[in-house]
Amino acid sequence: MIQVCGYAAHSAKSRLAQYSFERREPQDFDVIIDIHYCGICHSDIHQVNDGWSGSTFPMVPGHEITGIVSQVGAKVTRYKVGDKVAVGNFVDSCRNCSPCRKGLEQYCTQGATWTYNAVERKDGEKSIPTQGGYSNKIVVDENYVFSVPDNLPLESAAPLLCAGVTLYSPLIHWKAGPGKKVGIIGLGGLGHIGVKIAHTLGAEVTVLSHSLKKQDEARSLGADYFYDTSDPLTFKKLRGYFDLVINTVSVELDLNKYMKMIALDGTMVIVGLPEKQMQIGAFSLTVARRSLAGSVIGGIKETQEMLDFCSKNNIVCDIELTPIQRINEAYQRVLNSDVRYRFVIDVINSLKC
Amino acid sequence: MIQVCGYAAHSAKSRLAQYSFERREPQDFDVIIDIHYCGICHSDIHQVNDGWSGSTFPMVPGHEITGIVSQVGAKVTRYKVGDKVAVGNFVDSCRNCSPCRKGLEQYCTQGATWTYNAVERKDGEKSIPTQGGYSNKIVVDENYVFSVPDNLPLESAAPLLCAGVTLYSPLIHWKAGPGKKVGIIGLGGLGHIGVKIAHTLGAEVTVLSHSLKKQDEARSLGADYFYDTSDPLTFKKLRGYFDLVINTVSVELDLNKYMKMIALDGTMVIVGLPEKQMQIGAFSLTVARRSLAGSVIGGIKETQEMLDFCSKNNIVCDIELTPIQRINEAYQRVLNSDVRYRFVIDVINSLKC
Repeated sequence: MIQVCGYAAHSAKSRLAQYSFERREPQDFDVIIDIHYCGICHSDIHQVNDGWSGSTFPMVPGHEITGIVSQVGAKVTRYKVGDKVAVGNFVDSCRNCSPCRKGLEQYCTQGATWTYNAVERKDGEKSIPTQGGYSNKIVVDENYVFSVPDNLPLESAAPLLCAGVTLYSPLIHWKAGPGKKVGIIGLGGLGHIGVKIAHTLGAEVTVLSHSLKKQDEARSLGADYFYDTSDPLTFKKLRGYFDLVINTVSVELDLNKYMKMIALDGTMVIVGLPEKQMQIGAFSLTVARRSLAGSVIGGIKETQEMLDFCSKNNIVCDIELTPIQRINEAYQRVLNSDVRYRFVIDVINSLKC
Repeated sequence: MIQVCGYAAHSAKSRLAQYSFERREPQDFDVIIDIHYCGICHSDIHQVNDGWSGSTFPMVPGHEITGIVSQVGAKVTRYKVGDKVAVGNFVDSCRNCSPCRKGLEQYCTQGATWTYNAVERKDGEKSIPTQGGYSNKIVVDENYVFSVPDNLPLESAAPLLCAGVTLYSPLIHWKAGPGKKVGIIGLGGLGHIGVKIAHTLGAEVTVLSHSLKKQDEARSLGADYFYDTSDPLTFKKLRGYFDLVINTVSVELDLNKYMKMIALDGTMVIVGLPEKQMQIGAFSLTVARRSLAGSVIGGIKETQEMLDFCSKNNIVCDIELTPIQRINEAYQRVLNSDVRYRFVIDVINSLKC
């Protein structure tokens, strides 16, 4: 076992505080990473609050991790000490089910091993809880580690590992590109990177936000249009308009109103995860053969592809660095939508073990 | 105007009673059809009860119509007196919007002209309400009339016009065929013809019913498997099983339970229309990139294609003929699921004007 330190929540809804813990003894295929940066994802807050239930404590959140390889196991071939690397939402999967074999490990039928709030997938050992990136080191099998291209700074690349691929994957799967009208609900951590990626893919991009406040910012990120969803006219004007809408917000929306903005055979993809049940009328789907779908991050191959796409197109996240000691304040500001657009914890310069 | 007689509901939830009314004066492109048979669709009952709201009265329901051409307008080229023909859920559409131009008139952005409970689409005339097939004659533009192939009996072909195409269209659109696992929820008017069509398309077909009562019938219709949804084991055994589930029931279901039966990238298509909002958790969609979609009948081209497919494969509906005088009793029996599987009104032999 190796000694690690980080910040943990000790019970549901508690403030995060410094915490020392152990990670597994590195194995032949493991990479040890000195964590430099870790993004703060809205789902970290859901998990700390046990909002989806099933949370276990103490919990060290964080799944938007970048850093430098500090040690490799005897059989590691893909990475060497000093490499710029990243870890995302999961650190293992069964590797054998149909989704895993298709490179869609995030849909592993046995359940992927999530980067935190899960247990390690090792036979014959006691179950070690996984702990995330609000910490100084992490031990990950090389097959679940990504290479960060040289031109991407580690701090602004960190949120690509969750926010980036959460948008990239459905945009690719539902074929956003030239001639397609894409709507993005919410211009936060997820939405802002979605605008950049969808625009780069060649789609027409419209941001749907609950006020006009972020209009200019949205355009500078690459949005073609911006609509205020507090204005009832928005829903009239955009009736039947979109081929694809990505819903990034985890608050409750009147889905029936939003579905009417979708064209024949169009799809709304849920990527934000509301804690409550969603309500939808059958007619909202049937009248234009619409679909309501969901998508979770991306697979290993696709996540690396996304990083390479971002590298090629100079896409990173717009971030605000925060020292780890101010994590609780940062959580509050995320809840108030008071960040442009993602907090990234400056682990390397602030965490003292 | 031409004089017609039929059975109408005079107000929401009222019993149907004999009713005389007028249809439009036939135009150059119109076909006058002597109605022989008309199926009773569950949506007739929803409409009579104003269950979806927007019902207007007096209302002559019926959109599963078969009969014989008795007269044609001067410019009609597609039909002649004596032809076996059919009319389905709509009798006109704008003919100009993108869906209409794609042959998906049921999704006409201006709204198709439904066979009843709508108004005729004619400029410069007073709005004549459309009235359905529980009547002795109907006047329909030839482009919205179907040819009934010789080997299909008019009585058992009638429900193909709604029930048949309602299942055929999503089965084709979502690619039911060899290697695909299709689940059909509910073995009623819609479900039973869905089993026949999906089986003929080469898919593996499973019926999901709320008891084991219809097990043997389902197999004789072509189902490979049958599961009782009142047994919690069903949901365990079939976890992640189906590529496509067609939900034909209009009662409320616990969609989260059913969605879990769907495999990665699979779809549940709603074709029954519950009157209440459906509830679904985001995770039910996201964890396997599932879709919840809706579908409405089929377009003109596709409906004719469905009739030709049924002709080629000797598929008709299993029906019980009823005299029109017993329509109210038939409605009650539909609500009790006490019909195998579709009532068809024997208009030609029972309606006396």
